[in-house]
Amino acid sequence: PANTLRGHLELLLPAVCFVWQIAMIILFGIFIRYNEESDAHWIEHKTSKNISSNIENDYYFRYPSFQDVHVMIFVGFGFLMTFLKRYSFGAVGFNFLIAGFGLQWALLMQGWFHSLDPMDGKIKIGVESMINADFCVASCLIAYGAVLGKVSPVQLMVMTLFGVTLYAVEEYIILSLIHARDAGGSMVIHTFGAYYGLSISWMLYRPNLDQSKHRIGSVYHSDVFAMIGTLFLWMFWPSFNSAISDHGDGQHRAAINTYLSLAATVLTALAISSLSQKTGKLDMVHIQNATLAGGVAVGTAAEFMLMPYGSLIVGFCCGIISTLGYIYITPFMEKYLKIHDTCGIHNLHAMPGVIGGIVGAITAAAASEDVYGKEGLMNTFDFTGEWKEMVPTRQGGHQAAGLCVALCFGIGGGIIVGCILRLPIWGDAPDNSCFDDEIYWEHENCFGSHKMCYVKYHQDGSRPLLHTVYVPPLVQTIHVWAHTIL
Amino acid sequence: PANTLRGHLELLLPAVCFVWQIAMIILFGIFIRYNEESDAHWIEHKTSKNISSNIENDYYFRYPSFQDVHVMIFVGFGFLMTFLKRYSFGAVGFNFLIAGFGLQWALLMQGWFHSLDPMDGKIKIGVESMINADFCVASCLIAYGAVLGKVSPVQLMVMTLFGVTLYAVEEYIILSLIHARDAGGSMVIHTFGAYYGLSISWMLYRPNLDQSKHRIGSVYHSDVFAMIGTLFLWMFWPSFNSAISDHGDGQHRAAINTYLSLAATVLTALAISSLSQKTGKLDMVHIQNATLAGGVAVGTAAEFMLMPYGSLIVGFCCGIISTLGYIYITPFMEKYLKIHDTCGIHNLHAMPGVIGGIVGAITAAAASEDVYGKEGLMNTFDFTGEWKEMVPTRQGGHQAAGLCVALCFGIGGGIIVGCILRLPIWGDAPDNSCFDDEIYWEHENCFGSHKMCYVKYHQDGSRPLLHTVYVPPLVQTIHVWAHTIL
Amino acid sequence: PANTLRGHLELLLPAVCFVWQIAMIILFGIFIRYNEESDAHWIEHKTSKNISSNIENDYYFRYPSFQDVHVMIFVGFGFLMTFLKRYSFGAVGFNFLIAGFGLQWALLMQGWFHSLDPMDGKIKIGVESMINADFCVASCLIAYGAVLGKVSPVQLMVMTLFGVTLYAVEEYIILSLIHARDAGGSMVIHTFGAYYGLSISWMLYRPNLDQSKHRIGSVYHSDVFAMIGTLFLWMFWPSFNSAISDHGDGQHRAAINTYLSLAATVLTALAISSLSQKTGKLDMVHIQNATLAGGVAVGTAAEFMLMPYGSLIVGFCCGIISTLGYIYITPFMEKYLKIHDTCGIHNLHAMPGVIGGIVGAITAAAASEDVYGKEGLMNTFDFTGEWKEMVPTRQGGHQAAGLCVALCFGIGGGIIVGCILRLPIWGDAPDNSCFDDEIYWEHENCFGSHKMCYVKYHQDGSRPLLHTVYVPPLVQTIHVWAHTIL
Repeated sequence: PANTLRGHLELLLPAVCFVWQIAMIILFGIFIRYNEESDAHWIEHKTSKNISSNIENDYYFRYPSFQDVHVMIFVGFGFLMTFLKRYSFGAVGFNFLIAGFGLQWALLMQGWFHSLDPMDGKIKIGVESMINADFCVASCLIAYGAVLGKVSPVQLMVMTLFGVTLYAVEEYIILSLIHARDAGGSMVIHTFGAYYGLSISWMLYRPNLDQSKHRIGSVYHSDVFAMIGTLFLWMFWPSFNSAISDHGDGQHRAAINTYLSLAATVLTALAISSLSQKTGKLDMVHIQNATLAGGVAVGTAAEFMLMPYGSLIVGFCCGIISTLGYIYITPFMEKYLKIHDTCGIHNLHAMPGVIGGIVGAITAAAASEDVYGKEGLMNTFDFTGEWKEMVPTRQGGHQAAGLCVALCFGIGGGIIVGCILRLPIWGDAPDNSCFDDEIYWEHENCFGSHKMCYVKYHQDGSRPLLHTVYVPPLVQTIHVWAHTIL
Repeated sequence: PANTLRGHLELLLPAVCFVWQIAMIILFGIFIRYNEESDAHWIEHKTSKNISSNIENDYYFRYPSFQDVHVMIFVGFGFLMTFLKRYSFGAVGFNFLIAGFGLQWALLMQGWFHSLDPMDGKIKIGVESMINADFCVASCLIAYGAVLGKVSPVQLMVMTLFGVTLYAVEEYIILSLIHARDAGGSMVIHTFGAYYGLSISWMLYRPNLDQSKHRIGSVYHSDVFAMIGTLFLWMFWPSFNSAISDHGDGQHRAAINTYLSLAATVLTALAISSLSQKTGKLDMVHIQNATLAGGVAVGTAAEFMLMPYGSLIVGFCCGIISTLGYIYITPFMEKYLKIHDTCGIHNLHAMPGVIGGIVGAITAAAASEDVYGKEGLMNTFDFTGEWKEMVPTRQGGHQAAGLCVALCFGIGGGIIVGCILRLPIWGDAPDNSCFDDEIYWEHENCFGSHKMCYVKYHQDGSRPLLHTVYVPPLVQTIHVWAHTIL
Repeated sequence: PANTLRGHLELLLPAVCFVWQIAMIILFGIFIRYNEESDAHWIEHKTSKNISSNIENDYYFRYPSFQDVHVMIFVGFGFLMTFLKRYSFGAVGFNFLIAGFGLQWALLMQGWFHSLDPMDGKIKIGVESMINADFCVASCLIAYGAVLGKVSPVQLMVMTLFGVTLYAVEEYIILSLIHARDAGGSMVIHTFGAYYGLSISWMLYRPNLDQSKHRIGSVYHSDVFAMIGTLFLWMFWPSFNSAISDHGDGQHRAAINTYLSLAATVLTALAISSLSQKTGKLDMVHIQNATLAGGVAVGTAAEFMLMPYGSLIVGFCCGIISTLGYIYITPFMEKYLKIHDTCGIHNLHAMPGVIGGIVGAITAAAASEDVYGKEGLMNTFDFTGEWKEMVPTRQGGHQAAGLCVALCFGIGGGIIVGCILRLPIWGDAPDNSCFDDEIYWEHENCFGSHKMCYVKYHQDGSRPLLHTVYVPPLVQTIHVWAHTIL
């Protein structure tokens, strides 16, 4: 029945992929060109600008961080979501699809707002544009975490199209109009992305989801796969928060702050996880997710003079809050607010993101020439040009305003996009087939390690399929029993 | 019987490893020294050359890319091939062996052709040599993909020895004699490597391979392991294509072009994968492999002014062609051409490699001072020294000639090496034991998740082994049935 | 019974985590500040020091290496230990806990010894401090390898607290007082860490461990997971050994030497592994571990003019010695010396570490101005300041003295800490529950692929649990039989 229900999808996904990719090619042809540092004219430009060495090309300042961010987007987010026993293909595969499409659209949307060259009307891209595109995609992947297993790939594509668009607008408002600083994106990426995803999940609430509840859970090795995602996110988060900070001390400091904050989070997340069980045992869900909250929460303030102990305090608090969120808030949200949050992004991204925005506002408001130095203050907060008269206390207010904008865009955008996704044309899975790779992936019906499967091979031997007709009676009986009790 | 057949191999593999490693030590002792930038004399050299800072050591331009390439070679290629349900050890282990040996031999072979110091007759190595050695090894690992599961480790060592030798010669002809440009190696790495492997597979064709066909296929978690390989290849491909490009804009542009091309490939590969199934479902084989074709095809032209939309077009086409290759060409080649291609390298490396060569030729022929600038053109195509009079249109011809050389070396070399590998002295697996780790690896007979295994432990408790004698009668019966129907 | 035995642990682990994390925050508040290159005053400092560009900030010299080291610590060590069939959560999870705590304490301990600013009494940290903290943690993770599966997380925390403390002291003695050079830490990290762990394992010897012996062993996919750890360690080891070497040729040379040494190790490790089996088969244990020995052994001498062939010789020997260690020495040590070494760290870290120290001493003693150049010699061995009169031959003696200090600290410290850990207050697992995730982790009782598990879901559907009561009689009987024979 699952297959027949989504019959029209046979052509919908390919059609969407083709149309959107062709649109990207046309728009890239019209709008996108290399910037000065990636264009072959660089060699002349270098001479005219008296740049002494190729090593001062922005590429060498940012490319290592870019690659780390890239790993976080594709392996980090992708594998973090493989924890479900039967949805690993969907987790890592649809993550791949969303990110592959999203980064192209992000280059365009962010380009129109941030790097349109007034001389020729073209968007000029370089390594920083690629990092920003990956950042933008991150917000959509966060949103995917809330609806993991419950939506179709076409819905994800629509969600990403609107998500990237909204992101570019709110980023422009927060960073350019309001002049808030947000190096690691606590506000523009995490707060926005998480509330966008939660609002969509709320709009798509399925009252009968308990028909698929037995698939929400992990098997032993799917939890180990998820740890790959966790660790690559955790390890490379210092690169994430420092990737687009100022050259020199800005990037350096952002990396240190993130490194420390994340270390503190590990200890408090484990402590609360152990406290939450009568037996004192640990829960892999908390280790996989809550240990990352410190990286989210230190995002905005990472490039500020947060001080090493300040970073530890942020991480300390977030490890506690995030783990408590998994224990108390996620069940509460599902039961009373009708928001089902598959990966618990409210605990990993929403709450820490808001905390990060607040920490950023306080740290900015408390900045002084004493701590930063006269030039350092101007440099860190970019008090130049039209913002020359800005002072730290007012900057704190602007940071808070930025947080509100991110919240509004996340919730508002999510509700609108959620309405669109409720249209019955996207071929999402029926309530009894959620969290199941089977309806979107062609493969053998043999998951995890807890089932007895009897596999037969195609004529051509290429891929195995489950054929119970080939199972001898006794084994078949056991098989049926096993299914019954599962 | 598998064990008895390969009896003489007990000593063959260790002997080959020892002899070749000792040969490497002797040859390294005679020939290989540090280059100026990695020698302790650098500090004096720096002063004499007026280099202002250590940061201008080539190490800082290339080391981050080197490490990414290194990950692609060992984790990327290794894990991409773990998809087979019973050959994950062989995939990742023999990949390790080939690469570990190949890179040493590559340093020597490439050194003799490219970096022999005329003053003292020594090869001078540095970070770029390590990248080039990894590149060279990549071509042998591509070839491994065609014969995965069907050859012995000793055959792989022989294949690598000749593969690296042929690579160094064709690379010298293409890059130095013909003066073709090939930053990402579409021609020298992918076209050569793929046709080398396919020709060997053709020479080693096994008419009775269907005795092992039931092992060609994946289990759920082996597909997830393969995605680790896919993603690390996909993410780090921008580093691969930019690793040995010109400092500055060359590396910068190569990274951008590859990033974009790969993003487009993801969408079209998924679209065709979905179209190819009546139910519109996706196939993990396509996601694991075809999504990478864009990186191969943009290799040669990556450092050229291909333009962002040009990269997208290349990726767009290759995603389609590569996926169609998996659906139509691989079965055709096996049935009519007697070429069995385990990993489908014809679709992932051969066709995209040839396309990459053609794109490179066209892009080079179309280059103009208008687009590149006068100095940029000279710089990008290295129109210096004896090639000072070269013009873009003729460069296009040279690129095409380079592609032909790569094809000839691949096919010709593969046929010759295939003949050598047909000698009955290498201890390859019998037809009914292909794609099976059991004949080369000491471990428990308990694969994947679809079998009931009854494990007993050694006296010393160290490693489990299958002992059916300990299985009670009923369970034993079921076990036998399960085996029968598999 | 397992649960009741560790009842008091319900609060011990959370208490330790909280108390120590709060202590860290207080100590960081008192002592730790940003250094010149990560402080916002950098912009002024740069001008006063005539530094021409931000790219000369130490961040850009070391950050890519730092991230590689970070991956080795968390993914490398973590996944290398996942090979046990039922202890993957503990391997990767407790590795995470130890490292997260250890790096904070290491920043303090190492700071007090090495980077205390005499002006204000503060420790000034930057990217090099983070690398050194990761290095310090590495020694504790090595020690963890010896006791994997046999100690409680609280014991690990205690072991890390003392391990880091001892490390900082021995490092200060070896590097500062004795003025030995140890770029890759063969002595300070590997020798110390391995003997520290082995001594603790000796003190904690369990005569009745054979009750848990059936859990010492791997399943197919746990061996593949372990290969993730192996490969990330192998690939990034050049970054490990070069991370804190001198800018320029020092880092460059250290990377080349390590790259070559590791390549040679792969071949000899495989050769000996194959030789050790009558059938000539390979053993995954050797591939996973012994292939890394070359990286350990080349640690001290990596930045010296070891010459490429010298690196190959070191790797060649260590591949042999390490593999032979797994075959002969580990069983011997367990049987006669009462030292149980779960991961075989004696073969991977202890012996190669000692060899590395000796190679370093010989290479240092043999250094000459001829090979290094006058300035190069001074630079490489840091013959400046109070060590201006040092000569290579004497430096060789100092290196040897350093090795002895590392050994003494490892063995002595391990015995003392082992005594502390024998106190019956730490809640370690009973002899029949070692190597089992079940007593520290809340999850379903369904490991690996060789068991028939019947899973039922919680009321709320969140996580599956084993409920044999739901299994029909026949299946239940088989289940019991399966358990009996395991």
